[in-house]
Amino acid sequence: MIPRPELLNDLSGSYELSTGAVVSGPAELVDAVRLALAPLDLRPGDSGDIDIRQDPGLGPEAYRLTVGSRGIEITAGGRAGAFYAAQSLHQLLPDASYRFSTRASWLVPGVRIEDAPRFSWRGLHLDVARHFSTKREVLRLIDLMAMHKMNRLHLHLVDDQGWRVESKAYPLLHEVSSHRPRTATNYYKEPESYDDIPHGGYYTLDDLAEIGAYARARCVTVVPEIDVPGHASAILAAYPAFGATGERYDVLDRWGISPAILSPLPPTIEFLTTIFDELIGALGETPFVHIGGDEVVLDHWNEAAEIIAFRDSLGLSSASELQAWFLRRLADALAERGARAVVWDEAFVAGGLREDTVVMPWRGMGVGRRAAAAGHDVVATPVFPLYFDYAEASSADEPMAIGDATSVSDVAAFSPAPAEWSEAERARVAGVQAQLWTERVSDPRTVDYRLWPRSCAVAELGWAGAAGDDFAARLDRHLGRLDAIGVEYRPAAGPHPWQRRRPHRPSVVPIAGMMEKLEAMTHDAESTRPSV
Amino acid sequence: MIPRPELLNDLSGSYELSTGAVVSGPAELVDAVRLALAPLDLRPGDSGDIDIRQDPGLGPEAYRLTVGSRGIEITAGGRAGAFYAAQSLHQLLPDASYRFSTRASWLVPGVRIEDAPRFSWRGLHLDVARHFSTKREVLRLIDLMAMHKMNRLHLHLVDDQGWRVESKAYPLLHEVSSHRPRTATNYYKEPESYDDIPHGGYYTLDDLAEIGAYARARCVTVVPEIDVPGHASAILAAYPAFGATGERYDVLDRWGISPAILSPLPPTIEFLTTIFDELIGALGETPFVHIGGDEVVLDHWNEAAEIIAFRDSLGLSSASELQAWFLRRLADALAERGARAVVWDEAFVAGGLREDTVVMPWRGMGVGRRAAAAGHDVVATPVFPLYFDYAEASSADEPMAIGDATSVSDVAAFSPAPAEWSEAERARVAGVQAQLWTERVSDPRTVDYRLWPRSCAVAELGWAGAAGDDFAARLDRHLGRLDAIGVEYRPAAGPHPWQRRRPHRPSVVPIAGMMEKLEAMTHDAESTRPSV
Repeated sequence: MIPRPELLNDLSGSYELSTGAVVSGPAELVDAVRLALAPLDLRPGDSGDIDIRQDPGLGPEAYRLTVGSRGIEITAGGRAGAFYAAQSLHQLLPDASYRFSTRASWLVPGVRIEDAPRFSWRGLHLDVARHFSTKREVLRLIDLMAMHKMNRLHLHLVDDQGWRVESKAYPLLHEVSSHRPRTATNYYKEPESYDDIPHGGYYTLDDLAEIGAYARARCVTVVPEIDVPGHASAILAAYPAFGATGERYDVLDRWGISPAILSPLPPTIEFLTTIFDELIGALGETPFVHIGGDEVVLDHWNEAAEIIAFRDSLGLSSASELQAWFLRRLADALAERGARAVVWDEAFVAGGLREDTVVMPWRGMGVGRRAAAAGHDVVATPVFPLYFDYAEASSADEPMAIGDATSVSDVAAFSPAPAEWSEAERARVAGVQAQLWTERVSDPRTVDYRLWPRSCAVAELGWAGAAGDDFAARLDRHLGRLDAIGVEYRPAAGPHPWQRRRPHRPSVVPIAGMMEKLEAMTHDAESTRPSV
Repeated sequence: MIPRPELLNDLSGSYELSTGAVVSGPAELVDAVRLALAPLDLRPGDSGDIDIRQDPGLGPEAYRLTVGSRGIEITAGGRAGAFYAAQSLHQLLPDASYRFSTRASWLVPGVRIEDAPRFSWRGLHLDVARHFSTKREVLRLIDLMAMHKMNRLHLHLVDDQGWRVESKAYPLLHEVSSHRPRTATNYYKEPESYDDIPHGGYYTLDDLAEIGAYARARCVTVVPEIDVPGHASAILAAYPAFGATGERYDVLDRWGISPAILSPLPPTIEFLTTIFDELIGALGETPFVHIGGDEVVLDHWNEAAEIIAFRDSLGLSSASELQAWFLRRLADALAERGARAVVWDEAFVAGGLREDTVVMPWRGMGVGRRAAAAGHDVVATPVFPLYFDYAEASSADEPMAIGDATSVSDVAAFSPAPAEWSEAERARVAGVQAQLWTERVSDPRTVDYRLWPRSCAVAELGWAGAAGDDFAARLDRHLGRLDAIGVEYRPAAGPHPWQRRRPHRPSVVPIAGMMEKLEAMTHDAESTRPSV
């Protein structure tokens, strides 16, 4: 479908877009455009300043945007395409258009844009288990993602340090597992120290429903993660019977890998599938559920007679094979519920995944390539450069981080589907996602600092496949928008004085060495995170 | 003006209000109603589900609301009345209507409400100087206030511990005065301890403009406070020449009253009036500016030869008289800019105020009554029960507070215009306001805890004059709404485990004794906050 000729003939013109301007077109698409340009309070109407046409020939996220002196025309395949056209239109307006204003009028330059994303998965991961993010912060993150045309919010809802969702079936999860009395403040092998400040919180199922609807309206899919069978301390603080040993754990108050592991026996499977039902029931349409599978310490599965007997009854010969069976069983349960499983790369290395399981290669792109070659959809998530709990610079001024250093230009230089991969392997790359683990990120202002502007680069990788050589030159435009929205990003020159969270610690293992260690481990089904 | 007879004849009916329903009436009033019912995404139209009529005979905040089976009718004197009618309408819907939803439909019960506020000043004060609140938290607080029909947001923008606004004329204010390297963690007379975490932040003038516009659209007036001449450490860290001694101070990293004081000489007046111009220029229409006047240690004014000579040249005989002159001079400067000054009660006790200066009697209603008798508009702000940095209960489970204890029922029992005052004195009570000082409130989640639900009671005092005997019975309705919005209020049974911020300290001075000391001090122009 071609934009109206009178528009094409007048591309040199510009169009004045004012508060309360009228949008016409299919209702669903009009709704998407109004949401994307919320500060302008656009009105639906029969023919308007912005006319939207649906063209099923375009992909679901593709769009054409034409601005001429006589009006603005959007053509899109569906809701998402219209939403992204409107986000592009928004980006043509001054940064001030991202602020609330009672009355505004902006001159939009004449353009013709025809665009579609390179990747279908353009994600951010937020660890709300180590430190809770309130509902309003999650909704705001969805807004920020939508503005950057990102479309997958991966919420890490449980870990040793906390469980973050209400459960009607297992209420001790939100009553007991959702909080800890204190949190470690020491760095790695320093003497243990704690803050003596209780931490906790959880989303009610109503909150989750609201988050799901809010995200869907903005073309963001929430990917909930229930990380199993390891990282189980918080669950086992409430329901020790679901553990391998029956032992009651405390919600963990320090970092590192815990030996706490769920049992693979039928009652635990039943427990987890009930949780899946509650999650999916609340969130609504949930195409993906992440089930973790990372950093599992299998020792207890080799010690418990009942588990060994169960393994034998399945004809399996190792705990690693049993783990593969367990995750497969959960993925099957998800498939029955219309959702695909997503796993960390250890689960791929352990083998036995369903073919439709999505793999996240956090230990490097080497294992990602092997997963792609094996036919799995892969979302590029390597520690370097996509773990944003690493500092932006090796400097004593930076807030304390897991390690040094991943700069915004490191992110911009990353290739989610490397040129040296085969075409078939590259075709398996569904997209790219940054991870924000929050061991050292205890408040929303530091979340801002760690995520931005590095996530601007991730957004460009996801949409365009590469951030391009001119990313650095375009960064200022990103920062201007972030300023208007009130995002407390890391300034290019280093942190503001109040963004320094001393005492910073130097990197224990330089990130290059870390990546080599991790890569080596991806060849061993039983290996876990290296000791650092 | 009487609602349409067909509505009055059918008050037993109810009306179904759906997402996208149409509102008709004068544009300004339609806009107010749409904002108040934002989750319903109402559309403006020629005749609608909600019809609004303007009746200049009603006061600016008064309204009539009629819901019958044929529609909803709002009659209002102006924008604010229509906005509050819509807030009442919102309160007739289920709590879930306060959540984001893509599509909803609610049955509104048939009612006829005719209502107007008892007081014109229904305020909340937030100390963003001791701990900064981000722009998004300020905007959210405005939303929460609007939903409770509160209309004055008093922002305490500067104190010894920080300055929170950009200044084009004096950029060191936001560059230097806006942050401190650490913050005291010890309680009162305990040995000093610090957190070693830098703290800071400030609003740009663009942020302030956005806050002002956002507030006005929701019928909230922002009352900025530049607290002078005391509490000056942060200013004097950047511009020591404006101080009484010329000495450079550090932005204060601990609590208590500092001797840092501005000079009363013409360059300081010039500096402050320039700041007023910047503030008012950014915020837009600013009917009130608070200039503090509390807790001033005048010693340096009695020591500096230049200040003594200046005092003599004015024919004044004491530092206290000079302070009165100084505040009067600033109030005159504000009057030239269309704003009335607001002061803490010490400034009233010192004497010499402009007649139109509003007085906030924090040290008790005794001094408030004297200010009212002297013809000043008074906003009831006594420490008990309106300082919300006091704990809700004397319990080791409560987060650390300035002292114990002010419960929500203490607030509900308060009378802003006591029956024992004369009619003329009572007529001078402009309203009521709760204060949240943030020495011990370092994060937005604790702000929620300290403000709510006590602020629900303040809202009722402000609107109805009294919270009424049935307040406790109605509290659950308030809490249900707060739950839907995601406000982490203090539960009636005490804090959630993760809301405890140990170690709690017992009250040093019980609040009753504190109020007696404060009241005694209001008879002495030179007195300041008691040592505790």
